[in-house]
Amino acid sequence: MTRQQLFDNIRRKGSFLCVGLDTDIRRLPPHLKDDKNAIFTFNKAIIDATAPYCVAYKPNLAFYECFGIEGWTALEQTVKYIKDNYPDQFIIADAKRGDIGNTSAMYARSFFEHLDVDAITVAPYMGEDSITPFYGYEGKWVIVLGLTSNKGSHDFQLTTDNAGVPLYERVMSKASEWGNDDNTMFVVGATQGRMFEQVRRVAPNKFLLVPGVGAQGGSLEEVARYGIIDDCGLLVNSSRGIIYASEGEDFAAVAALKARELKEQMSAILKNKGII
Amino acid sequence: MTRQQLFDNIRRKGSFLCVGLDTDIRRLPPHLKDDKNAIFTFNKAIIDATAPYCVAYKPNLAFYECFGIEGWTALEQTVKYIKDNYPDQFIIADAKRGDIGNTSAMYARSFFEHLDVDAITVAPYMGEDSITPFYGYEGKWVIVLGLTSNKGSHDFQLTTDNAGVPLYERVMSKASEWGNDDNTMFVVGATQGRMFEQVRRVAPNKFLLVPGVGAQGGSLEEVARYGIIDDCGLLVNSSRGIIYASEGEDFAAVAALKARELKEQMSAILKNKGII
Repeated sequence: MTRQQLFDNIRRKGSFLCVGLDTDIRRLPPHLKDDKNAIFTFNKAIIDATAPYCVAYKPNLAFYECFGIEGWTALEQTVKYIKDNYPDQFIIADAKRGDIGNTSAMYARSFFEHLDVDAITVAPYMGEDSITPFYGYEGKWVIVLGLTSNKGSHDFQLTTDNAGVPLYERVMSKASEWGNDDNTMFVVGATQGRMFEQVRRVAPNKFLLVPGVGAQGGSLEEVARYGIIDDCGLLVNSSRGIIYASEGEDFAAVAALKARELKEQMSAILKNKGII
Repeated sequence: MTRQQLFDNIRRKGSFLCVGLDTDIRRLPPHLKDDKNAIFTFNKAIIDATAPYCVAYKPNLAFYECFGIEGWTALEQTVKYIKDNYPDQFIIADAKRGDIGNTSAMYARSFFEHLDVDAITVAPYMGEDSITPFYGYEGKWVIVLGLTSNKGSHDFQLTTDNAGVPLYERVMSKASEWGNDDNTMFVVGATQGRMFEQVRRVAPNKFLLVPGVGAQGGSLEEVARYGIIDDCGLLVNSSRGIIYASEGEDFAAVAALKARELKEQMSAILKNKGII
């Protein structure tokens, strides 16, 4: 998907919501417990319920790998279901991969050819040749970890070098040399609040994938205040706050309500900024 | 596997070789091309041929994920085959995972419960809560990326902070607080040569997983000169240099020769150091 197509979808729907499909089999509603394909059944219901309110889905690979072959099957079914039924949704494999060149090239094939998602998240620790193999796939995106939403983000990402530059800024500057505004995004956690001001200095035109709204405590208003740009430039993710909003038989209906709430807040923000 | 058991295996075999199962279906010998389960068939032959000369196997997940369900099946078969037939081999899932706490916990379940390997490689960028969920599994090991073997290792890992400490040292120091010498190893690339001297100052008693001998150009002698400690403290990995040493029908026999060559060099080093 091109940047223009993504922005068109954001405008049309009045939403920059990404729904995180972190489907944990231990948290599924009791009535699905005997379903042999429970993860996919759950995802399908969540997708049908939330698709009108979001522009992207982000399955986190950990939740699928955890069940080996069965989990991988559920992931492939989920991606195929979205592509077949909601082809305007941007699909992100939240995989945080990164390895030496020939291995990253294998991961790129895995996600962009075999699974055929729109984007993959990658971890920058191993540097340039761990990331560049993900480039060169038409319409595909590389989403580099910048400043993550968790407490541990302070351990290394905020370490300043001898010129006073924190590691996450160095990562963003370097990755901006390897990719461009049309194929590279950064992960910046919603919990980082005002740090978005500084992030926009380093990455003024990049789309940002923003996890951490909801269960992790980040504020949508603060993210938007400092992070939004002319063509929105934000995909804000909520996982647990939507998909586990109810653990009963009404899980899909309640997920839809939660997604709609976020979508309405987003529409207000987009209107307020004159984007829609 | 405990550290003592690992060291016992190293002494008994006179080897600290790890064979990397980076099995790329495009590089399999032509006579396997019609085999429906070619990856596992290939791995099984490599394992039977090399088991006398090594103490560990390291499948790199990228090469399996690349084929989705089929690849994952081949990986599970491979791990089970090693465990059933060579229970003294240490199995490392080279996955380089790392995510927010609840997600890393899912990865830990995936690798230590479902797949039941001895160790997993993890990427440190997201800090403490991305790594600690991998601890607490009896006899299991966390192998943290320290100073990797690729060119991109210079992009961030060697960046010095305002106290002059390079990032990889900070990672090793921090991770040494989270784990201990009996459940934590570090990845240090063989291509880093004399850097092993400095690595041993920061991590004097840790086992090091050392990729990069062979195809990537690292020297076993140099690694051993600076890296070896009283109970060896090294697992030196070779992947392509062994498994693709011949691309003909004799691939397993030639892999055995290459593994034996490395094993003999390692035996000489261990004798020279008085370890065996």
